[in-house]
Amino acid sequence: MLKAGVIGLGYWGPNLLRNLYANNRNVALVMCDSNPVRLEKMKSRYPDISSTSNYKDLINDSDLDALVIATDVSSHYPLAKEALLAGKHVFVEKPFAASIGQAEELVELGRKNGLVTMVGHTFMFSPPVIKAKEIIDSGELGDIHFITSSRVNLGLHQKDVSVIWDLAPHDFSMLFYWMGEEPCSVNAFGHAYVLDGIPDVAFINLAFPSGAIGNVQVSWLSPSKLRRTVIVGSRKMLVYDDTEPIEKIKVYDKGVDVIEPETFGEYQLTYRTGDILSPKLPTGEPLAAEMEEFLTCIETGSIPRSSGEEGLAVVRALELADASLMKAE
Amino acid sequence: MLKAGVIGLGYWGPNLLRNLYANNRNVALVMCDSNPVRLEKMKSRYPDISSTSNYKDLINDSDLDALVIATDVSSHYPLAKEALLAGKHVFVEKPFAASIGQAEELVELGRKNGLVTMVGHTFMFSPPVIKAKEIIDSGELGDIHFITSSRVNLGLHQKDVSVIWDLAPHDFSMLFYWMGEEPCSVNAFGHAYVLDGIPDVAFINLAFPSGAIGNVQVSWLSPSKLRRTVIVGSRKMLVYDDTEPIEKIKVYDKGVDVIEPETFGEYQLTYRTGDILSPKLPTGEPLAAEMEEFLTCIETGSIPRSSGEEGLAVVRALELADASLMKAE
Amino acid sequence: MLKAGVIGLGYWGPNLLRNLYANNRNVALVMCDSNPVRLEKMKSRYPDISSTSNYKDLINDSDLDALVIATDVSSHYPLAKEALLAGKHVFVEKPFAASIGQAEELVELGRKNGLVTMVGHTFMFSPPVIKAKEIIDSGELGDIHFITSSRVNLGLHQKDVSVIWDLAPHDFSMLFYWMGEEPCSVNAFGHAYVLDGIPDVAFINLAFPSGAIGNVQVSWLSPSKLRRTVIVGSRKMLVYDDTEPIEKIKVYDKGVDVIEPETFGEYQLTYRTGDILSPKLPTGEPLAAEMEEFLTCIETGSIPRSSGEEGLAVVRALELADASLMKAE
Amino acid sequence: MLKAGVIGLGYWGPNLLRNLYANNRNVALVMCDSNPVRLEKMKSRYPDISSTSNYKDLINDSDLDALVIATDVSSHYPLAKEALLAGKHVFVEKPFAASIGQAEELVELGRKNGLVTMVGHTFMFSPPVIKAKEIIDSGELGDIHFITSSRVNLGLHQKDVSVIWDLAPHDFSMLFYWMGEEPCSVNAFGHAYVLDGIPDVAFINLAFPSGAIGNVQVSWLSPSKLRRTVIVGSRKMLVYDDTEPIEKIKVYDKGVDVIEPETFGEYQLTYRTGDILSPKLPTGEPLAAEMEEFLTCIETGSIPRSSGEEGLAVVRALELADASLMKAE
Repeated sequence: MLKAGVIGLGYWGPNLLRNLYANNRNVALVMCDSNPVRLEKMKSRYPDISSTSNYKDLINDSDLDALVIATDVSSHYPLAKEALLAGKHVFVEKPFAASIGQAEELVELGRKNGLVTMVGHTFMFSPPVIKAKEIIDSGELGDIHFITSSRVNLGLHQKDVSVIWDLAPHDFSMLFYWMGEEPCSVNAFGHAYVLDGIPDVAFINLAFPSGAIGNVQVSWLSPSKLRRTVIVGSRKMLVYDDTEPIEKIKVYDKGVDVIEPETFGEYQLTYRTGDILSPKLPTGEPLAAEMEEFLTCIETGSIPRSSGEEGLAVVRALELADASLMKAE
Repeated sequence: MLKAGVIGLGYWGPNLLRNLYANNRNVALVMCDSNPVRLEKMKSRYPDISSTSNYKDLINDSDLDALVIATDVSSHYPLAKEALLAGKHVFVEKPFAASIGQAEELVELGRKNGLVTMVGHTFMFSPPVIKAKEIIDSGELGDIHFITSSRVNLGLHQKDVSVIWDLAPHDFSMLFYWMGEEPCSVNAFGHAYVLDGIPDVAFINLAFPSGAIGNVQVSWLSPSKLRRTVIVGSRKMLVYDDTEPIEKIKVYDKGVDVIEPETFGEYQLTYRTGDILSPKLPTGEPLAAEMEEFLTCIETGSIPRSSGEEGLAVVRALELADASLMKAE
Repeated sequence: MLKAGVIGLGYWGPNLLRNLYANNRNVALVMCDSNPVRLEKMKSRYPDISSTSNYKDLINDSDLDALVIATDVSSHYPLAKEALLAGKHVFVEKPFAASIGQAEELVELGRKNGLVTMVGHTFMFSPPVIKAKEIIDSGELGDIHFITSSRVNLGLHQKDVSVIWDLAPHDFSMLFYWMGEEPCSVNAFGHAYVLDGIPDVAFINLAFPSGAIGNVQVSWLSPSKLRRTVIVGSRKMLVYDDTEPIEKIKVYDKGVDVIEPETFGEYQLTYRTGDILSPKLPTGEPLAAEMEEFLTCIETGSIPRSSGEEGLAVVRALELADASLMKAE
Repeated sequence: MLKAGVIGLGYWGPNLLRNLYANNRNVALVMCDSNPVRLEKMKSRYPDISSTSNYKDLINDSDLDALVIATDVSSHYPLAKEALLAGKHVFVEKPFAASIGQAEELVELGRKNGLVTMVGHTFMFSPPVIKAKEIIDSGELGDIHFITSSRVNLGLHQKDVSVIWDLAPHDFSMLFYWMGEEPCSVNAFGHAYVLDGIPDVAFINLAFPSGAIGNVQVSWLSPSKLRRTVIVGSRKMLVYDDTEPIEKIKVYDKGVDVIEPETFGEYQLTYRTGDILSPKLPTGEPLAAEMEEFLTCIETGSIPRSSGEEGLAVVRALELADASLMKAE
């Protein structure tokens, strides 16, 4: 029987705990938070889960197989490092770490010690994102030309990180998952309007080795909530709108064909417009699938879909984007 | 009685001619196209308008007060220059000229000779754009933080200019009109997917002296048509969606307020969400207003809303955007 | 070579004339309106089409094969009757006639004399309506359970007929075409709010012999324009929204299945939700197809899709609906 | 301190209990369900609330002031009657009772004994419905001409009552609340497609004494969920779309004005189209407001917004609608 500990019972921690608790493997659980109010609240909700306010109890527990870390970003690295050194598999909430260096070290530690490192890029387990991945991999869209993504709404401003570190991890993890590659260049443009030094709007350009490009727009200042991603392929185009209650994914049989000239002369273009299909999406909570993936990878030794390497790729893009934003300011 | 000539009877020329013809000043008109088929077609539609296939006849006509130029971009500059040197007021279709140098020379010629130079940025005469300008100028939105604009659809690829020169003149002319200023920096990112060397998707970043920024997205490759502009102000936000049949403009009473801390401590933010108003828009054809403006300015000597200076500002931004795009390629 | 006359050059007549003129059969045409202003306007537009202000000239023209009648409803019957008696095929604008008796007589006259009678139910020639018919006939929707249709907007009040006679012919002709049957009962409920005695809102219930039912909502008083028809079948459901620029037809793979109980007990229901498909629609002007159908039926003797019988069925439903509305008032 | 009991801990009961529990009056509570599983589940959630499996314990509890009944419709009447006879105020879930006779008796019993009778028409406490009521009562819409309401989606079929008894209570309670009057006639048309004898689609026509009319469309068979109500007034029009995440209410400054002819002649109509306003709606859970209203009325003796009389009016319309539906079948 697997034994796992959850550190950090603020916003995300309880959701991860709930899904571990409900997982049908019957994982033995321990929960931990240094804040006694939070800990008490969770103890009354889960009287049968053991608990501690000292994370060292988890690190030193030789029966513990895995640690789920849902604390502030700044503590991801030290906690995960300590756990890996103690021989525990680690799941770390997004973003994986606060810098490229930290993320690289964690990935390397996991690899060297044969331990699973996984990051909580939940969107990689959500039905519409997986459906889009299947469609892309099937070749239905042809070559991917470019992807645009908008993630904007009013609030909530963070006080320590830019809107890029807050919102772009979602888009970056989706884009890299779909493309199957990391970008070769990342540039951002934006500004801080409400709080000095905390950019609240950013436009990020990405170039991929395959020749595809991406544009990600993130903002805490917007009249309406947008969660809209467009994937333009050489054969078809796909729109993923997460604010739609039903038709989250639409595949457009649209494109432009270049007709080779018979004789010497100009190329002709024809624009093609066909059916629009909104595929049925499976139901299921992404977090349940995410926790299931973590436990399966521990058991089988396989690499998680949102592995530490994926977490590192996202952190790398975040750091590059943020740096170019600061430079431009 | 004013006398005006229209050169170029391809796509836009006939629309301009129709509105000059319908203008209740009873302007004396001459039309000109070197293509005999086009000219014949227009002669059968307007048997009472005199015509010529040689533009020199217009230049040399000492009774002619003004020239309306709706030819290919490459001929805007030589025709307008010749007309200005012959003492005629000129209206030039957008984009004003093919380079910054050409545009500067035309503006300078007009200024020196006391002649009107005007450019056909039609959106500056469309009811929703004017309504947005009124709302901005009234101070209702507060300070303008940033503006995003998307102008994408499937087709039509141009074979000689990038998607920036084709579509961005609309967005640039609107943005500069609303902001009342030219950008101090322009950068673009994009790619050519269908035709080598002809970028068909671009993301353009603009910074304004006032501190506002802009992001313009243009593309000939898109699953659906978008004509959506968002203006985020410090007090309210405005959305202009030109694909909406009725509610083209919506004003959102939304914003974030920073509350000064009473004692030493952190700033608090409160997010404000109020009514949404879609104002009634006046009807009226933008082209009719545009031609009316040209004729009025000739009569009164006032400067047109879309003056040569505006045309120059747009050309300047186009050239900068295109250059940075080519560099990035 | 066929020879056809068009009577009535008000709103619809010129459209019909334009499509007859453009038909590649090269039909010989005569046009007629007792109003000299209208006639002159059309003569200047079509100088090569002969004309007359006296409709008798058309009736008495022994070379004339067919008459297209686009006059006021009250004159549909006398004109069509005279034409049929003179041995001419007739096309009559919708509604076919002002009463059931009139419509029956015209149909009977056509049948007896071997002449085509056709009515201008244009929607029966529009691509989305035809696509819906094909989908229904393919059996994809299963049995048709019910159809709802909304046709509402602000204005334009008629001064002589109820909103039912003005708007419901469109819905009735579509419904009867799709169902392949006439309703066995028609009832309406509504009221006259703006002009005494002229109902401006009505809700019409229809029952069909097959067991299907229909509900049609028509109004000149509505905050927004609705043109939305829903077809609920036993296997799938279809939505036809004519205000959508692109996705006018959507087919929902949705339904409820009744599972037979294994042992004595309650039936179980399962709700099925699958893909949503918006099929590509062919382009093409419905009026061109309508005129083509009329000419083809004259040449081949086949029965038009929107035959006089269809026109009679619609008039029958209109008269029943209007009568029950008046009774309820 | 008030003491209240909740009978029926199935679907709605726990919601009512939760809101009574959270009410800041600190009401003493007892909960009751004859189903031991349900009771145990609630006892573990609310260990400090006393409980019983025998409702007689509540009836016989002389300290108990009020009973909240959330059982099956068939037991509303006997339970409420027993409670009223025992001198307790009653809150009954919708629909108030299973027949007009039952509802009348309960209302009469409450009135005679000076006890509050209230029904759970929750929509009467929801922010958009209250906002619409305020707008109507302010006179902004002018006279109400007609109201249409659609409440359709796929499932869930009831096995004992028609779709009218299942869904129309919501629309009826809203309409009567807005109109401030009961209908003088109610007629329905519909059919049972999936389960014999259980109509799953219905179109209901209502006439009000003021001259207004209503049309309510309810169905368990629909490709998409609609919750759309349109109120057409003589001055303005209002749309309430409960499926909209933000703009649930829109007020259209639209209408038609009849211009009196100066001389003898025809009336002229002018159509007016102005601003569209989506007012900010207050937040707040309708059920909390509903329970607060019940407790306040007990304390003050005032009549609840959704009084037993309102419940009776709705039951009356339901019974009439259902009867006419059965007759038409």
